[in-house]
Amino acid sequence: MRNFEFKNPVKIIFGEGQISKLAKEIPTDSRILMTYGGGSIKRNGVYKQAIEALDGYTVFEFGGIEANPDYDTLMKAVEVCKKNNITYILAVGGGSVIDGSKFISAAAFYEGDCWDMVVNRRNIFKAIPLATILTLPATASEMNEGAVISRRELKEKFAFSNPLLFPEFSILDPTVIYSLPKKQIANGIVDTFAHILEQYLTTTDHYMVTDRLAEGILKNLIDLAPNLLSKDELNYNDCANYMLSATLGLNGWTAMGAMQDWATHLIGHELTALTGLDHGETLAIVYPGTMKIMSSEKKGKLLQYASRVWNIVGESDEEMIEEVISKTEKFFNSLGIKTHLSEKDIDKSVIDVIVNRFEDRKINIGEKGIVTPKHIRMILESQY
Amino acid sequence: MRNFEFKNPVKIIFGEGQISKLAKEIPTDSRILMTYGGGSIKRNGVYKQAIEALDGYTVFEFGGIEANPDYDTLMKAVEVCKKNNITYILAVGGGSVIDGSKFISAAAFYEGDCWDMVVNRRNIFKAIPLATILTLPATASEMNEGAVISRRELKEKFAFSNPLLFPEFSILDPTVIYSLPKKQIANGIVDTFAHILEQYLTTTDHYMVTDRLAEGILKNLIDLAPNLLSKDELNYNDCANYMLSATLGLNGWTAMGAMQDWATHLIGHELTALTGLDHGETLAIVYPGTMKIMSSEKKGKLLQYASRVWNIVGESDEEMIEEVISKTEKFFNSLGIKTHLSEKDIDKSVIDVIVNRFEDRKINIGEKGIVTPKHIRMILESQY
Repeated sequence: MRNFEFKNPVKIIFGEGQISKLAKEIPTDSRILMTYGGGSIKRNGVYKQAIEALDGYTVFEFGGIEANPDYDTLMKAVEVCKKNNITYILAVGGGSVIDGSKFISAAAFYEGDCWDMVVNRRNIFKAIPLATILTLPATASEMNEGAVISRRELKEKFAFSNPLLFPEFSILDPTVIYSLPKKQIANGIVDTFAHILEQYLTTTDHYMVTDRLAEGILKNLIDLAPNLLSKDELNYNDCANYMLSATLGLNGWTAMGAMQDWATHLIGHELTALTGLDHGETLAIVYPGTMKIMSSEKKGKLLQYASRVWNIVGESDEEMIEEVISKTEKFFNSLGIKTHLSEKDIDKSVIDVIVNRFEDRKINIGEKGIVTPKHIRMILESQY
Repeated sequence: MRNFEFKNPVKIIFGEGQISKLAKEIPTDSRILMTYGGGSIKRNGVYKQAIEALDGYTVFEFGGIEANPDYDTLMKAVEVCKKNNITYILAVGGGSVIDGSKFISAAAFYEGDCWDMVVNRRNIFKAIPLATILTLPATASEMNEGAVISRRELKEKFAFSNPLLFPEFSILDPTVIYSLPKKQIANGIVDTFAHILEQYLTTTDHYMVTDRLAEGILKNLIDLAPNLLSKDELNYNDCANYMLSATLGLNGWTAMGAMQDWATHLIGHELTALTGLDHGETLAIVYPGTMKIMSSEKKGKLLQYASRVWNIVGESDEEMIEEVISKTEKFFNSLGIKTHLSEKDIDKSVIDVIVNRFEDRKINIGEKGIVTPKHIRMILESQY
């Protein structure tokens, strides 16, 4: 096990009807900016519940934060904060709204070029306090300090993080899942599954504790997916267990003392930036490729994953690894998600662009930097 | 899943050599009270490392906090805090030292009878900031807000808790386990195992997420125990995985949205208060009894525990339950811990005293209050 430091101060308020607790948590003299996306919160009742709970507060609104939140959109919200002396941000939405709100919260006090703050992960010394009401389980941004921001003008997408960006609290009401489009649930399941794999599918070096946590969450996702995607009327407990799994997927718990990978996410971010594919779609495409191309380096963990998560008993190591990669890919397909670039009508030339970007940055990725630009080409070509 | 609120702000600093980071975490102008137990920290080098790391601070010491920390001892430390204007408490020890230090931290500011604060869980409005260096994995007090305090004068032992009692940080260096007596490691394994069972072995009502976390930790304890107890030279990763498991055993993670029991602990506390048995010893005695006597009420979860944790495949439900209770009891025995009161030369009359105490309090215990004084008698008699 590796040495580590862990601290996650986010308060989670979980369950049906909990949005009404908002006012207990936010200082009464706050000047709140409520941020949200395309307006689904006005259709599913969350907006109404939030506004009612905030009765008596001074509330400003900033809607229209898009999926893969864009720098130019967010900078407009930063102006709203400065102009109105906002003292609290309430992000009501999924990972994009929450990530975008983290950027707004830090950028409002940032001295200098705010894109530089993201790309070069510059120090952040102050941020507007932030809370969230989660409406789409997937990214775990509601319980972590990270955010991923896009800049369409440059076709770029980068992650940054800072302890000041932990939400003060997050309200998770599983009933928000009832009205989600199946496509968004499917993307969220892939995202959560991939988050766990990034923290798990590395080496077998004595991460007994986090291995078991990771394997448990993966098994639950496999069990929950058919219920969440095939039924029109969803069961509350299925939604609750999925929502909690998504939060635990990237809140630091399964990273304690463990090696981490993240190559698939970094490649996936490039795919989204260059082609507009959904984040979940890129992960479903890239992960099977990462498993195939890096199978020797990840052999021990792939075998453990095969046996403990998928109960595979094979004649040989090679056979087990082949089967578990195939099962993973079929699992993504069973959610209605494609796993090949060509199935999404993506031009093959994007592979060159991505490989060139990583070559230009002169860094390898993955655990211990084992994934080189050459591997990245092989990964993407294997999933073309 | 039940609605819940969760917040655990403790910073964990984990790994070999991390005690040197102390000074980074404690404000430089602090007047520190370093609390510890019988002096094992002077033999294993932890005291020396802590004192060196605190060079430049004003440090007072209070040693001699006993196992099952006693009210009368702790009140002396409260006087030391008041007299010397202590602003920070550093607890260096196991659960008893940390629990005792939590009491000291709250009692230093408490207006009124400090035993009343414990017994009736009175509101605590202020506490001295506290941090810990853990030297004995077992209670998870290093990452929770609870404490268990004894008062030998009254032969009583009670738990209390308050969010102000979360340590600000805890340093966990697994190498402290190398020099622990095997008996203390065994007690710690039983304690951790029992903490998980208290949060797990209830009903099967849709606690998929916490069930998997709990089962993972139980399986790891079963795997780790032989290595930790049979070898003279311990492996670092075994110690690290055990230490982390003990912390996760009662830091709130496996309680998220789940039903909880705690009958075994409450009965065990009485046994310690009345007979002086170690906390771990009482749990090893009581838990098999709780499983036997409450087996109809806990049937579904006992079957899940049998199949997922112990891989038991049985002809009938009854057979599986009998086998898993026997396996659990034999697991405790394999650690060198007795599971019957008579084996510890305890007079049978203690059963009457305990049952009377619960009758006097007029409360049932266990999940949904299913464990009555009558059940408590049957549990203890079954393990006499």
